[in-house]
Amino acid sequence: MFSNVHIVLVNTSHPGNIGSTARAMKTMGFKKLLLVNPKEFPSAKSDALAVGCIDVLEKAKVFSSLDDAVASANVNIGLSVRTRKASIPTLNVNECINHVLSNNNLKYNIIFGNESSGLSNSDLLKCDYMVSIPTHKDYNSLNLSAAVQLITYEFYKHSNTHISNKKKPIVRATAKEKNYFIESLIALMGQTKFMSVKNSKSLTKKIYILFNKANLESDEVNMLLGMLNSINKKLNK
Amino acid sequence: MFSNVHIVLVNTSHPGNIGSTARAMKTMGFKKLLLVNPKEFPSAKSDALAVGCIDVLEKAKVFSSLDDAVASANVNIGLSVRTRKASIPTLNVNECINHVLSNNNLKYNIIFGNESSGLSNSDLLKCDYMVSIPTHKDYNSLNLSAAVQLITYEFYKHSNTHISNKKKPIVRATAKEKNYFIESLIALMGQTKFMSVKNSKSLTKKIYILFNKANLESDEVNMLLGMLNSINKKLNK
Repeated sequence: MFSNVHIVLVNTSHPGNIGSTARAMKTMGFKKLLLVNPKEFPSAKSDALAVGCIDVLEKAKVFSSLDDAVASANVNIGLSVRTRKASIPTLNVNECINHVLSNNNLKYNIIFGNESSGLSNSDLLKCDYMVSIPTHKDYNSLNLSAAVQLITYEFYKHSNTHISNKKKPIVRATAKEKNYFIESLIALMGQTKFMSVKNSKSLTKKIYILFNKANLESDEVNMLLGMLNSINKKLNK
Repeated sequence: MFSNVHIVLVNTSHPGNIGSTARAMKTMGFKKLLLVNPKEFPSAKSDALAVGCIDVLEKAKVFSSLDDAVASANVNIGLSVRTRKASIPTLNVNECINHVLSNNNLKYNIIFGNESSGLSNSDLLKCDYMVSIPTHKDYNSLNLSAAVQLITYEFYKHSNTHISNKKKPIVRATAKEKNYFIESLIALMGQTKFMSVKNSKSLTKKIYILFNKANLESDEVNMLLGMLNSINKKLNK
């Protein structure tokens, strides 16, 4: 169940939250946990809160960068309580659930940021979509594992009633393929001076958002890379 | 918002869970917390986990018995992960939410039991309805504050879309009125020897369930009490 969906925690400060997250996941049938730069893991504090689900912690994979953690997924979805200025495509919770349940041939990461600061804007650029959990306007400080609990609950609840539609499966590119192309493009734009120290931040952002929205397939990325290669060859001839 | 709904924690062992519950509540617009026999409260451990919502803890009311805590509510709803043998009326989560959102003239308690043992069978007899949160069959050990988070989230989510229907408001009896009648009836049944030491437990249960299901209005309880009184007068003449 949900074997194509990873829960990803980024820069988690409190090991107890990793244990609580494991428990939240397992109550809803999730078992695959990825950790990016946890402050303390493994930890007795994590284990103490993972009542009956040490197996989730034992199988958790630890990464030193978000890039590495997102690489093998086809779709990366970042959680954010704040509305960002960035025009990253947003999904509401139901749209997010439907996306995942309608495409069980794709690998998904559902990505949660640090307890106090959430996901950074540069982290969100690695996400195809952004999702916000609805909270009361006066106080939106969801605990990290509570946020994981709510999202996994929604998945579990909807999976019981969801009827998969039979549309043609998408051979979607992995994030690694897509981001390799984007970085290559950015490098090229530096080389061409289109991108300068002054505009690099805003341009990088626009490029990521554009290609994230494109829902690129593997063949399309290969084609784009072929185009870049041909340009590079020509430039460096 | 949700000023007619109390969250009730019964026999809570870990003060940290009280703090986490306050936080879970406030993210979804709930502020009224009742505590029945908490092991440790007030507590620095509760405060530490109630980031930004000490106000909920400060206004929490502490009771020494569930009877006292449920007394002023019209409808008491108990959470249970287990399916009970007792035929207490059950609602699924959506039915529970609709019940509350359709009757904002009524006072509700949503009642959560102890971390390891949940609500006892005698606690559940004080509940008009029982609600279970769906969990995966292999592992149903929801953390206490996670359960509160899920229920309050469902309320908050649905309150944004719910259109209150204009049906005639019910002048529903309070639990205190109803339970006073039930206890009077049970006393009478002891007096009449209908209830013996041998059958008192199972009979008590059946009586509670019957009258809980009846959704008694205040006038009806008054009438029932009048009937009891008339019997008692006759018996003790």
